[in-house]
Amino acid sequence: MAADQRPKADTLARRQRLISSSCRLFFPEDPVKIVRAQGQYMYDEQGAEYIDCINNVAHVGHCHPLVVRAAHEQNQVLNTNSRYLHDNIVDYAQRLSETLPEQLCVFYFLNSGSEANDLALRLARHYTGHQDVVVLDHAYHGHLSSLIDISPYKFRNLDGQKEWVHVAPLPDTYRGPYREDHPNPAMAYANEVKRLVSSAQEKGRKIAAFFAESLPSVGGQIIPPAGYFSQVADSREKTSSLTSSPWASPLAMATLLPAWPQPSLWRGHLKPPALSTSTRGVGLFIGVDLIKDEATRTPATEEAAYLVSRLKENYVLLSTDGPGRNILKFKPPMCFSLDNARQVVAKLDAILTDMEEKVRSCETLRLQP
Amino acid sequence: MAADQRPKADTLARRQRLISSSCRLFFPEDPVKIVRAQGQYMYDEQGAEYIDCINNVAHVGHCHPLVVRAAHEQNQVLNTNSRYLHDNIVDYAQRLSETLPEQLCVFYFLNSGSEANDLALRLARHYTGHQDVVVLDHAYHGHLSSLIDISPYKFRNLDGQKEWVHVAPLPDTYRGPYREDHPNPAMAYANEVKRLVSSAQEKGRKIAAFFAESLPSVGGQIIPPAGYFSQVADSREKTSSLTSSPWASPLAMATLLPAWPQPSLWRGHLKPPALSTSTRGVGLFIGVDLIKDEATRTPATEEAAYLVSRLKENYVLLSTDGPGRNILKFKPPMCFSLDNARQVVAKLDAILTDMEEKVRSCETLRLQP
Repeated sequence: MAADQRPKADTLARRQRLISSSCRLFFPEDPVKIVRAQGQYMYDEQGAEYIDCINNVAHVGHCHPLVVRAAHEQNQVLNTNSRYLHDNIVDYAQRLSETLPEQLCVFYFLNSGSEANDLALRLARHYTGHQDVVVLDHAYHGHLSSLIDISPYKFRNLDGQKEWVHVAPLPDTYRGPYREDHPNPAMAYANEVKRLVSSAQEKGRKIAAFFAESLPSVGGQIIPPAGYFSQVADSREKTSSLTSSPWASPLAMATLLPAWPQPSLWRGHLKPPALSTSTRGVGLFIGVDLIKDEATRTPATEEAAYLVSRLKENYVLLSTDGPGRNILKFKPPMCFSLDNARQVVAKLDAILTDMEEKVRSCETLRLQP
Repeated sequence: MAADQRPKADTLARRQRLISSSCRLFFPEDPVKIVRAQGQYMYDEQGAEYIDCINNVAHVGHCHPLVVRAAHEQNQVLNTNSRYLHDNIVDYAQRLSETLPEQLCVFYFLNSGSEANDLALRLARHYTGHQDVVVLDHAYHGHLSSLIDISPYKFRNLDGQKEWVHVAPLPDTYRGPYREDHPNPAMAYANEVKRLVSSAQEKGRKIAAFFAESLPSVGGQIIPPAGYFSQVADSREKTSSLTSSPWASPLAMATLLPAWPQPSLWRGHLKPPALSTSTRGVGLFIGVDLIKDEATRTPATEEAAYLVSRLKENYVLLSTDGPGRNILKFKPPMCFSLDNARQVVAKLDAILTDMEEKVRSCETLRLQP
């Protein structure tokens, strides 16, 4: 522990006194104090090293030296608004445009993903002259008033659904109305949206936009960070040569993860309650849906919370998501390695084996104090 | 011009092609390309030095070495979200709390002033269970949907006034309904708000909040910048000893500025059209209201635009504000020196003398190409 660090209990006490309780902590029953991070690792005040499976925002890895250097070089020279001409903003826009369809050729750089979605909503409403929005069930589009209104994940616990919001079913082929056994679930879910729009139009509502997915969060209202983000783009290309272990490519991750929640481990052994999984995802963003029962697919909410807490005690940072908070959500920085994946799998395996023992001997799955 | 810089015309062409025209440039008829800034100075691609009278966001000065160093030291170690415990966020909150009334003792750190105002609106509505908002005329509270709705400066040009927004007159003692000659303009304007609230309540409306002023923009949803802002606070105390010229204290600025728009210069000489002023402000944030005529106080809109453009040609960055866009708005970084104030006054004086000549010889005040 560095000499200038407060004891963790003191930091926690100050936090509880000074910062609103709406600002949630990870692992609220025993939060982690993180003082340093590098690549796919975070370090607590005791120097313990955690494997980070959740901070995809630091997507080329925490404190990437090229990114840190680019920010520092720019901060020394200029950091101001975009009402002056500057090369970075136009060069970065040009670079982005080369990766996008031809029609996406005009750029706005904003402060956060929330500000970007708020602007997207304004643009759609201004262009169409309409007000209504179609969204997917359980979606989260940001933390601003305008976005809470179109985020079922949020508004269900707050002000409820506005008359200008239309909620389409989540195209979930595991627990939704159309599943793996449906001949064409994609078309079936698309038809649900079509029906929803027709029904709204019959009532005289006019649709401005369909928010199917959050826009990527790319900051940079202030000009020079455009250089910073350019550097992030560069770093993505260079990261594999900078990290010591082989980079867990999206392919590697995708082939490894579906392998480890083996039916032999997850199914059959853990009963009662039976615990099973469905794994899905794109690239390094992977969800593992824990269920109590194959037939009903009941979310294994408590088991998921227990598992994530035990993983934290074993220096693996992971979180849950989904309406049942039973989906293990992997979204590590892109420098997450094959070795990291193997370590995480080994720890998951050990904890699951222990959970199985406990369940067999009829112990309650209880979080350690 | 640095070797890796694009020619200014090329930067402008790329900007016009790639960045939305809604993202305005200063001096759109001949924008400035700024490549570097230090303290109260900005530098264009030719190395020309501009005195910066407008960038109050960089309030201890552009690229302050202590602030740049603090950001770099933090970026090398950790830059993540606030769901982990960290000393910076609690120590900075503690430091802020010591400068505020006892009741203001719970903190939220947000990404921008707009996100802060959006949250303030949500808090007020949640706490009161009411929806309506009282705002001042011509106010601007941010660029998000929810804030455009409560910003007469914005909504008058967009969707208009919502039924839940109540606009009180701006307490302007120069051009508003109650002026310098009123026995108690403060009470008179406060009574206007009272009347507005009563009238709304009679119609069954329920007021959630009175937005009288924008909240200060303090970034930092990501934890470690709390250290950065602490460093900004430190730097404010240390700035005067770091700059070579004496610091123009708010007092010095306030005493100097009302002195230079002398009635002898501004009144009497410039007719037709007669040009006069009213100077007001707090600290280094000062407005000079240019008028065409003493009796009617008609805003001198074109003259203000011409003056600001001529100042830019003379390497002084200044802007206008107000419903008539006739108010010269001074809001320099706090390292703005007495010498800077003298230089700006001398240049203003020279340009005004020239404007006077032109008006005498019946020339049109025309912006140089």
